[in-house]
Amino acid sequence: MISADGIINDLTHIRDSAPLIHNITNFVVMQPTANALLAIGASPVMAHAVGELDDILRHAKALVINIGTLDDFWLDSMRVATKLAKQNNIPVILDPVGVGASILRTESALSILNANTPAVIRGNAAEIMALAGEVVTAKGVDSQYQSVAAFSAAARLSQAYNCVVVVSGAQDWIVDRENSLELNNGVPLMTRVTGMGCTATALIGAFCAVNSHYFSAAAHAMSIMGIAGEVAMARSEGPGSLQMHFMDALYGLNQDTIAAKLRVKACS
Amino acid sequence: MISADGIINDLTHIRDSAPLIHNITNFVVMQPTANALLAIGASPVMAHAVGELDDILRHAKALVINIGTLDDFWLDSMRVATKLAKQNNIPVILDPVGVGASILRTESALSILNANTPAVIRGNAAEIMALAGEVVTAKGVDSQYQSVAAFSAAARLSQAYNCVVVVSGAQDWIVDRENSLELNNGVPLMTRVTGMGCTATALIGAFCAVNSHYFSAAAHAMSIMGIAGEVAMARSEGPGSLQMHFMDALYGLNQDTIAAKLRVKACS
Amino acid sequence: MISADGIINDLTHIRDSAPLIHNITNFVVMQPTANALLAIGASPVMAHAVGELDDILRHAKALVINIGTLDDFWLDSMRVATKLAKQNNIPVILDPVGVGASILRTESALSILNANTPAVIRGNAAEIMALAGEVVTAKGVDSQYQSVAAFSAAARLSQAYNCVVVVSGAQDWIVDRENSLELNNGVPLMTRVTGMGCTATALIGAFCAVNSHYFSAAAHAMSIMGIAGEVAMARSEGPGSLQMHFMDALYGLNQDTIAAKLRVKACS
Repeated sequence: MISADGIINDLTHIRDSAPLIHNITNFVVMQPTANALLAIGASPVMAHAVGELDDILRHAKALVINIGTLDDFWLDSMRVATKLAKQNNIPVILDPVGVGASILRTESALSILNANTPAVIRGNAAEIMALAGEVVTAKGVDSQYQSVAAFSAAARLSQAYNCVVVVSGAQDWIVDRENSLELNNGVPLMTRVTGMGCTATALIGAFCAVNSHYFSAAAHAMSIMGIAGEVAMARSEGPGSLQMHFMDALYGLNQDTIAAKLRVKACS
Repeated sequence: MISADGIINDLTHIRDSAPLIHNITNFVVMQPTANALLAIGASPVMAHAVGELDDILRHAKALVINIGTLDDFWLDSMRVATKLAKQNNIPVILDPVGVGASILRTESALSILNANTPAVIRGNAAEIMALAGEVVTAKGVDSQYQSVAAFSAAARLSQAYNCVVVVSGAQDWIVDRENSLELNNGVPLMTRVTGMGCTATALIGAFCAVNSHYFSAAAHAMSIMGIAGEVAMARSEGPGSLQMHFMDALYGLNQDTIAAKLRVKACS
Repeated sequence: MISADGIINDLTHIRDSAPLIHNITNFVVMQPTANALLAIGASPVMAHAVGELDDILRHAKALVINIGTLDDFWLDSMRVATKLAKQNNIPVILDPVGVGASILRTESALSILNANTPAVIRGNAAEIMALAGEVVTAKGVDSQYQSVAAFSAAARLSQAYNCVVVVSGAQDWIVDRENSLELNNGVPLMTRVTGMGCTATALIGAFCAVNSHYFSAAAHAMSIMGIAGEVAMARSEGPGSLQMHFMDALYGLNQDTIAAKLRVKACS
């Protein structure tokens, strides 16, 4: 089980060592993703030219791949970077944005998955289910049913690829072959700010850069997302101010706040 | 003539149905555009890979095309998407950013126009005039003269393509073959925030997704842009805080605010 | 030596003439860069399609080149634009983001430099040193040593290319063949907001557009960056609110604030 001590320990390592996090991500979220990484003390770099991936990845401590606005040109970069990350023995975090919404996305995510097993995959319920090969109809699915199905999909993905799988939503699940836990932090208004999921994935990258126990690292990152969202929500009047206060909250997180707010339990 | 009742009716439909709005837009505004769509309750998707346009557009309720940072690769996506939107019978909203500033932009906008008549075209006076074939010298034109000329250009475009044309500025005009109206909401400081025009175009997409009377839909979207700008301005000290409060204001719009602030009249 | 009078004189020219600043910049910072240019009264345009560079640059008063997310396609645009700027006799401002971090970036920056001598180059210490041909190890370098080395590198770059070189950091240095000065405005938290350096480069573009004494123009731009950062910091609780208040502060700058806060001296 994770604890405030463990979270703050990772966060302190990030603040002290400013690990370089290499992001190949989508156009929509590049700026807030970079800002969130800076806010927790990491050093983001966005670079996608195949000709420099080797140089950049030599110094990176984690690689974050996000297929949100992919095309063939960017997909090629993602695959090359993923293979280089394997050579350099750094963790890859995969955000399969929109998997299931198009054949291209599903096939692209699978091709990245098969190029190098990621340390962590993070998606919402529909994305994780689609990646696990289920046919998802986004609307009209009973949410309780979908929850069970999503958890099951995460468990199967985790078994198949021997990696950590994060299903984010009203509750977040962190799943690997042996363990699973549920986080209950965060606020609904976060779904009205673009790129909050993508930001979560980037923060997982920063935590995996300093903590090789990727299950804990992913859980720590997801918990600070939710806790910072709650801190921000207390001061916000809508999604605009939430986005701003969220960055301030990430920057100002301390052990007292984390200990007071952390809501984690074993998956039921 | 539009009314607060009509606006709130559309807005409620958007909030209830969360229509998927497919945007192929420019790099500068992707994030604020997505945030504005989320703030009013719509579901934005940004996707440009030709290989997935068909899949994405099957579920989209409107397609927003914005040529702000176009190049040949993106232009190809825009044309393909525009044709697919026609097959799927969903409205296309065109934002001809910078038309008149380069031959490439003018020709590109016209090629998109001719691939599939949009439901709505939205631009500023110079863009609408350029799209209508007039030679525009951006500076030194008497503004009163330009206003008359821009209205005339909008009317001609509307006739030629049988679509709604929106000219945004200190006053917004909504024009189609039979009707025209003038909106007098908004604040000058909105011109100091990048992408406010592009955001207006995206919101028109969301309103057209729930209201097939595109003239009303466009007018409703433009009115909430201006009203949210006014609400935000009352709390802002510059363009940074305006941008933030604008998102909060969009999110919080209700019938009382709209009814109190709506300023619409027939074009004189 | 620069003064509040000189700064406000340039700023007034920018506000009055709204010079068109053509940016070919990176995906991460396009939005805040555009917003900062709008906040000081300039007119930003982002355009990279080779087919329209000539048209756009005919009306631009400065060209800002930033290689932050370069690839071969964008690099080609940067080189063509740089040559066209030379033909049109408008200043080029180069931001060699990440030079030294990859061979591609170093070679790309040098190829842009050699296509047309820029009016101003702005980078951090590591970037300026790398551009001057020194081997930089980003971490573990004694900062005092690095400061001397960075100043020396700036002086040599300035001699070699006959241009102004800005080294930004806790102190900013402005260097050309005859002159140098040190600015001591700004706050450390600015390093936790993505794109502040890129924004500085864009603002240098706006000042060079109205002041052909590029040494002064660069110093004026850097001074308002730092002063606006200080004004914003007084109201901020983290990097999120700093980013917002910074835009408000840029917009609201007046002579009294500048005179009260400007901290400039000859380089020691």
